[in-house]
Amino acid sequence: MLLPIRSTLEASGTLPWSDTDREEAILLERMLAGFIREGRLTVLTEGRRALSFGAQAEGIADVTIRFRSRASFLRVALRPTLHFGEAYMNGDLVLEQGTLADLFALVGRNLGNRERGRRGPLARAFRALARRFQQHNPIAAARRNVAHHYDLSETLFRLFLDSDLNYSCAYFPRPDLSLEEAQRAKQRHIAAKLLLAPGQRVLDIGCGWGSLALALARMEKVSVDGVTLSTEQHARATARAEAAGLADRVRFSLIDYREVKGTYDRIVSVGMFEHVGSPHYESFFATIRRLLAPDGVALIHSIGRMDVPGLTDPWTRKYIFPGGYVPALSEVLPPVERAGLWATDIEILRLHYAETLRHWRERFLAKRAVIRDIYDERFYRMWEFYLAGSEMGFRHGGLMVFQLQLARHVDTVPLTRDYIRATEAALPA
Amino acid sequence: MLLPIRSTLEASGTLPWSDTDREEAILLERMLAGFIREGRLTVLTEGRRALSFGAQAEGIADVTIRFRSRASFLRVALRPTLHFGEAYMNGDLVLEQGTLADLFALVGRNLGNRERGRRGPLARAFRALARRFQQHNPIAAARRNVAHHYDLSETLFRLFLDSDLNYSCAYFPRPDLSLEEAQRAKQRHIAAKLLLAPGQRVLDIGCGWGSLALALARMEKVSVDGVTLSTEQHARATARAEAAGLADRVRFSLIDYREVKGTYDRIVSVGMFEHVGSPHYESFFATIRRLLAPDGVALIHSIGRMDVPGLTDPWTRKYIFPGGYVPALSEVLPPVERAGLWATDIEILRLHYAETLRHWRERFLAKRAVIRDIYDERFYRMWEFYLAGSEMGFRHGGLMVFQLQLARHVDTVPLTRDYIRATEAALPA
Repeated sequence: MLLPIRSTLEASGTLPWSDTDREEAILLERMLAGFIREGRLTVLTEGRRALSFGAQAEGIADVTIRFRSRASFLRVALRPTLHFGEAYMNGDLVLEQGTLADLFALVGRNLGNRERGRRGPLARAFRALARRFQQHNPIAAARRNVAHHYDLSETLFRLFLDSDLNYSCAYFPRPDLSLEEAQRAKQRHIAAKLLLAPGQRVLDIGCGWGSLALALARMEKVSVDGVTLSTEQHARATARAEAAGLADRVRFSLIDYREVKGTYDRIVSVGMFEHVGSPHYESFFATIRRLLAPDGVALIHSIGRMDVPGLTDPWTRKYIFPGGYVPALSEVLPPVERAGLWATDIEILRLHYAETLRHWRERFLAKRAVIRDIYDERFYRMWEFYLAGSEMGFRHGGLMVFQLQLARHVDTVPLTRDYIRATEAALPA
Repeated sequence: MLLPIRSTLEASGTLPWSDTDREEAILLERMLAGFIREGRLTVLTEGRRALSFGAQAEGIADVTIRFRSRASFLRVALRPTLHFGEAYMNGDLVLEQGTLADLFALVGRNLGNRERGRRGPLARAFRALARRFQQHNPIAAARRNVAHHYDLSETLFRLFLDSDLNYSCAYFPRPDLSLEEAQRAKQRHIAAKLLLAPGQRVLDIGCGWGSLALALARMEKVSVDGVTLSTEQHARATARAEAAGLADRVRFSLIDYREVKGTYDRIVSVGMFEHVGSPHYESFFATIRRLLAPDGVALIHSIGRMDVPGLTDPWTRKYIFPGGYVPALSEVLPPVERAGLWATDIEILRLHYAETLRHWRERFLAKRAVIRDIYDERFYRMWEFYLAGSEMGFRHGGLMVFQLQLARHVDTVPLTRDYIRATEAALPA
C-alpha cells in the first residue's frame, strides 16, 4: 500500500516568503515528501527560517540539523548518497538538536521495512546508503596513505573494539551481553560450526590481528594458519601467538589466500568475503574447494543484504571502502553450487551487527578527545558517520550477516543442527 | 583429480568373440568406462556371455543384471535416463543377483561426490536421473487417468506411508527413530520454526491429507486453513478434521493457493514447492508476501539440489512427475529477495529423505502381493524403481531438502536459533 504523504511545511507562518526561500522549501518538500512520517525533523539553513517535517512521536527524538550555507544544502539535495556524509564530515551540516545517531534512527524508522520498492527518491537514496555501509577494510581504504593508516590503525581500533580486537559482527545470544562476551560468544558459535577436533589443520582467511585463530587454538588442540595482507596485522598477530605460547600451533603468513598450498581440515573466514568483490566469487569458492580436505568443513561469515544485488554507495566507496561489495545471498550461492560444494547450513544473523556497532560507536564517541588529537575533527566525524550509518543499515536497511557452512560431502556435517548449541555449551568459556 | 579408468572387461576369456559380441562389449565398455570403480557389476544379455565391471568391494553387494534381449540393451545404451527405468518396469531388465536397491547403491557409491563435472556420459546420465527423482504429485502425474488414480491413491499411499499419511521428508534427530516418530519430529520441527501462538491464523499450502494442519492445531490453539487441488485429499482431510473434533479450527478448501484471500500470521508449505515450477517462483513468493501479516512467519519445506540448475530427467517426467522441478537454492533466493521478504533461516536437511525413502521402500516391497493385486507387476516395478532411485538421489545424487523460513521484518524471528530446539522440547509429544 502507498502511504499518504504526511510531511508538512510548518514554516509557512505569518510572513510571506522570498522567492529564494520558496525555491528551497519546494526542493526540501520534494526530497522529504512522504518520507518523514514518524518523528520530527527540522532543517535550518544559515540565515533562513526553519522548515519542519513530520510530527513528534514517542520513542523518536526530535532532530534539528543546520546547513552552514545554502550551497552545502543544495549539494546534499543534488546527490545525498555522497554529499550528506561529506557535509557532516566537513562541518557543513551540524546537529542543533539530537545526535547523528538520533538522525539516523529517525531516518531508519521512516525507512522501515514495510514498503520496499514503493519509496520516493530520498528514501531510496537513504536506503542505498544504509544498505551499503560495511566493514572498514584497512588494506583497501588506505591506498593513498598506507603507512600512515597502518601505523595508526591498531591504535585507532583499540579505542573502540573489544580487548581481543575482533573487527567483525559479535553474536548476542542474550541482549544484555557485554561486547567482550558477545565477541567471545561469536568465536564459540563459529568453533562449534567448525566441528573442531584435536590435530586438525585450520586455515583462517583474513585473520586480522589473530583473535579468532588464537581463540580456536585455545578451545581445541588444532593448528591454525592465518593469512592476511596487512603487514601490521601480521606482525601483531605473530607477536600475540608468541606471547600466548601458541607459536608452535598458530602461524600467520603475509600472503593472499589464493597462494595457500596444501589442504586443510577446516577453513574459516570472518569478515573477509566483503572484500573479495563479486567478479571473484567464482575463484573464491573454487579456492575453498581446492584447499578443503575431502572430509573438511568451511565456514564463511560475511555481511550480506536481504534484497536484490546493487552497487556500493558513493560516499562509502570514496571514504571508507574503495573495494568493498556486500552481496545478496542470490549472488553467493551460484558460485558455491558451481564449485561442487554443499551449503550444509545458512544462518542469517539479523541485528547482531547493529548491536555490535552501537557498542563500537559508544566507545568511539567516548574517546573523542584522543581521536581528535591523533587525527582531526574531520576524521572523527567521518568515522562517527560511518559507525552510525552502518548501525542504521543493519537496523533498517536490509543488511545482515550470513554464516555459510560448506562441505564437500553430504555426510560430513551432522544431520541435525543440534550439535551447534551442544558444542557451544561444552566449549571452554 | 581425474581418477584412472579401472573398469575392466573380464569377459575376454579363452574363446574368441563374435563380431556382435565385440560390438556390444565395446558399447558397454564405453558406457561403463571409468564408472564402476567400487563393487562389481555383471551384465548378461540373453544368449551371450557375461561382461563384468569393477571388482568386489567390502560393503557393496555384487549385482548381476540381465537384459532379456539385445534390443532392450541397445535402447538403454542409447538413452539411459529414459530407457533404464522403462526396461526395469517392463521386465526387459531383471536382477539375477542382488536387488534393485543394491544396483542403485552400487551406482550411487560410484557416483560419489568427489569428481563433480569430471564424469563420463554414463555417470552424468545416472546423476541426472538421481538428481531428478522427486515426490510423486498425484495431481500432475495422473492427467491421463485422474479418476482411477485418485480412487486408488490413498489406498496405495496407506501401504507405505506412516499412519498419519505424511507424504514428505521426515526428520531424524536420531537415526534409530521409527518412520512414525520421525514424521512426528518433522511436524514439531516445523511447528517450532513457525513460532506458533494461540489465536494465530495459519495457512497450509498443499495440505495433502491434512496431517500437518491437524498436528499444528493439536500442538497449539491456532486455526488452520489448508488448501489442496485434490478432491480426494480435500474430502479425506475434511473428514479427519471432523473426526478429530477440530472442524471449528481446521478447515480445508479445494482451491489454488493464489486464490486465497486475506492475510495469515503463519504460512507453511511442505512438499508443494516442487510442483510450482521455476517460471512461477516469482509469483509464488509474491503471493506469500501478499498473504503474510506484517509480523508473519512463513516456512517453505521443499526438495532442492546442491548443484547447478538443470532439467528433470525424461523417465521421471514421463512416468512419475510431469510438472515437477527441483530447484537449486540459487534459483529460489532471487524471487525471495525481489518479493521483499527476509530469508531468516535456511536449513539444509541432508540424508533425511534418503532414510524416509528407505522406510517407504521397505514397506512398499513388503506389500508386493497386495499392490500387484490392485495394479499390476509393471506398476509395482515402476514404483520400486521410483523409490529406490529417489533414495539414491538423496544419498549420492546431490538432492536435499531445504526449509526456508521467511518474514517481512528484520525483528519478527528471534535473533538466535536456540528457540527451535527449546520449542521442540516444550511441544506436546
